[in-house]
Amino acid sequence: MAKILVVYATDYGSTKKMADEIVSGAGSVDGCTAESKAAEDATSDDMESADAVIFGTPVHMGSPAWKIKKFIDTVCGGLWMENKMNGKVGAVFATGGGLGGTGGGGELAMLAMISNVTELGMIFVPFPKSSPGYANGGLQWGPCARTADDKGPIGFPDNMAEPARCHGANVARAAKLLAGQKIFD
Amino acid sequence: MAKILVVYATDYGSTKKMADEIVSGAGSVDGCTAESKAAEDATSDDMESADAVIFGTPVHMGSPAWKIKKFIDTVCGGLWMENKMNGKVGAVFATGGGLGGTGGGGELAMLAMISNVTELGMIFVPFPKSSPGYANGGLQWGPCARTADDKGPIGFPDNMAEPARCHGANVARAAKLLAGQKIFD
Amino acid sequence: MAKILVVYATDYGSTKKMADEIVSGAGSVDGCTAESKAAEDATSDDMESADAVIFGTPVHMGSPAWKIKKFIDTVCGGLWMENKMNGKVGAVFATGGGLGGTGGGGELAMLAMISNVTELGMIFVPFPKSSPGYANGGLQWGPCARTADDKGPIGFPDNMAEPARCHGANVARAAKLLAGQKIFD
Amino acid sequence: MAKILVVYATDYGSTKKMADEIVSGAGSVDGCTAESKAAEDATSDDMESADAVIFGTPVHMGSPAWKIKKFIDTVCGGLWMENKMNGKVGAVFATGGGLGGTGGGGELAMLAMISNVTELGMIFVPFPKSSPGYANGGLQWGPCARTADDKGPIGFPDNMAEPARCHGANVARAAKLLAGQKIFD
Repeated sequence: MAKILVVYATDYGSTKKMADEIVSGAGSVDGCTAESKAAEDATSDDMESADAVIFGTPVHMGSPAWKIKKFIDTVCGGLWMENKMNGKVGAVFATGGGLGGTGGGGELAMLAMISNVTELGMIFVPFPKSSPGYANGGLQWGPCARTADDKGPIGFPDNMAEPARCHGANVARAAKLLAGQKIFD
Repeated sequence: MAKILVVYATDYGSTKKMADEIVSGAGSVDGCTAESKAAEDATSDDMESADAVIFGTPVHMGSPAWKIKKFIDTVCGGLWMENKMNGKVGAVFATGGGLGGTGGGGELAMLAMISNVTELGMIFVPFPKSSPGYANGGLQWGPCARTADDKGPIGFPDNMAEPARCHGANVARAAKLLAGQKIFD
Repeated sequence: MAKILVVYATDYGSTKKMADEIVSGAGSVDGCTAESKAAEDATSDDMESADAVIFGTPVHMGSPAWKIKKFIDTVCGGLWMENKMNGKVGAVFATGGGLGGTGGGGELAMLAMISNVTELGMIFVPFPKSSPGYANGGLQWGPCARTADDKGPIGFPDNMAEPARCHGANVARAAKLLAGQKIFD
Repeated sequence: MAKILVVYATDYGSTKKMADEIVSGAGSVDGCTAESKAAEDATSDDMESADAVIFGTPVHMGSPAWKIKKFIDTVCGGLWMENKMNGKVGAVFATGGGLGGTGGGGELAMLAMISNVTELGMIFVPFPKSSPGYANGGLQWGPCARTADDKGPIGFPDNMAEPARCHGANVARAAKLLAGQKIFD
């Protein structure tokens, strides 16, 4: 039995759509429940009661949106201070622009959130290249949806639903094995 | 003649103090003027009229404070869209906790801001190991003041004033040479 | 039952000493065995038969030593191609210079190895700030020993043995729970 | 007058081809000369006599090829020790696989080299999104050619020649302005 929380920032709804797909994948794993919360709404209690947290953001200027960072500074900071998240499972995803054929800063945006996940003492689940739909927007750090092309915004692409659900299910399976276990001295 | 702008987020004033030292160093270079602005107050016009911008932040959870990210998303985003900052000079600094003998996430916090600087098309000035006071809190990416030790906050350490002023002067000298020049196709 | 492998590059022996302490910590966990191999000696079979791999390097110019990278390119590349390491446990550590009060590039050196670990589809175990001896050389990414100060090399510092052993034991406990489990779709 | 050096690692020749295009772009700037050297052949003297150095690598497992790292450790290490590269101009480029719609680790591979560039005290020239051909394989950090797709290797893509030449010319223009100047205290 494990509880998966997806916390996301969103501007025009694409990152929320991806969060929904991840929730759907995580909830499909036997014995797991999943829900998503906007960064503005997620609380310290939400974090403490989760066995795994997946952080998602649009890529803005090569790093995460300020709204998810505000959540991390103001809500997660206290949990970090008291080591409350140690040993839980963490993961990330992103949605990003289409400028540049190689991802437009998505990698470092995810890494900035992985630094947060890691500071919290969480065990990080990556996104292996063998995952279904990886070719549509995979990176080792997590799935990254291209939500714009050279002409402008295209919304959340249909072919990212599969890798998003897969990522959610992967994280849920890891959370089931690690939930309530004492890993860290 | 070059104009240097320091934009910073601050919680308890240490990052502001470091910004002041950097301004003092930048302003000491012949033909350069310098000022600092809190991230909440800096405007698009401030950015456009500067020849160099130095971004500073406390390290929160291994990445920049949300207030500087809000500035980058909401103010710098538009400048990025219109390529207004291309070819200006950029640099970074940070203040950070004392937990961990190796800097507590300062490096990735600076890198997150460098990703922003680089997205803006700015030319990045590092902090070489030969700089005066480097041993007190240097990193290749920029000076990083340790503002806490194992017992708690210690404020802005006196011995970081010298490397901070040095960094400001370095950036100002680069800005003088590059101001108004056409680097990028 | 889990098997932990530590693969390291070393110049003057400090990283090897740290590897030995990590092996000692990992081997102290009930039901776990641990050994270390120099990057030049570790083989594809060593990797496949391990449940967890901890990569260690001295920091050279802000990134890992070329010897560990050669191992990753030439030995791990084939394992990556065939998805052989998916779902195993990965972790990192480093030893680094004393120039700069904030860690001399250790963070990005560890991140470069974490990128390798993550490409391999391994689940990443961090080093929480509550770990014994964290203050002596901790970073969220893994323990990082300062093996030089402003005057020159000082060897592997005694007070890093405790955090190194702790890291090894943490990784071993995670490996026990995840060994042989199917996490990834 | 400025001298631009491109140092690259290559496996099957794609990164060499990209290096050639960058040399061609850099050499087209009035008053600039440019040449490329394989990482195995470049010497300390080559580095010292250059005003700008552009480092290029294929992406292997999310970080630079071991051959370029060997060059950095064994040739550049001594230059770093003696602060010989301070204030010169640095830049990067990469070639990478096609797995994953978002660049397959290219960003962190470039960042690992930027850490090296920055440790050397070099001033970093990015690749702005307004550059010709950016959409074909741009990243803020530098141009990144996709040399494989889901089916396998495709070689150096023709449409990357333009952004590669542009990057070379940008770096040459910056080098002309900064060559021989005293930036760092």
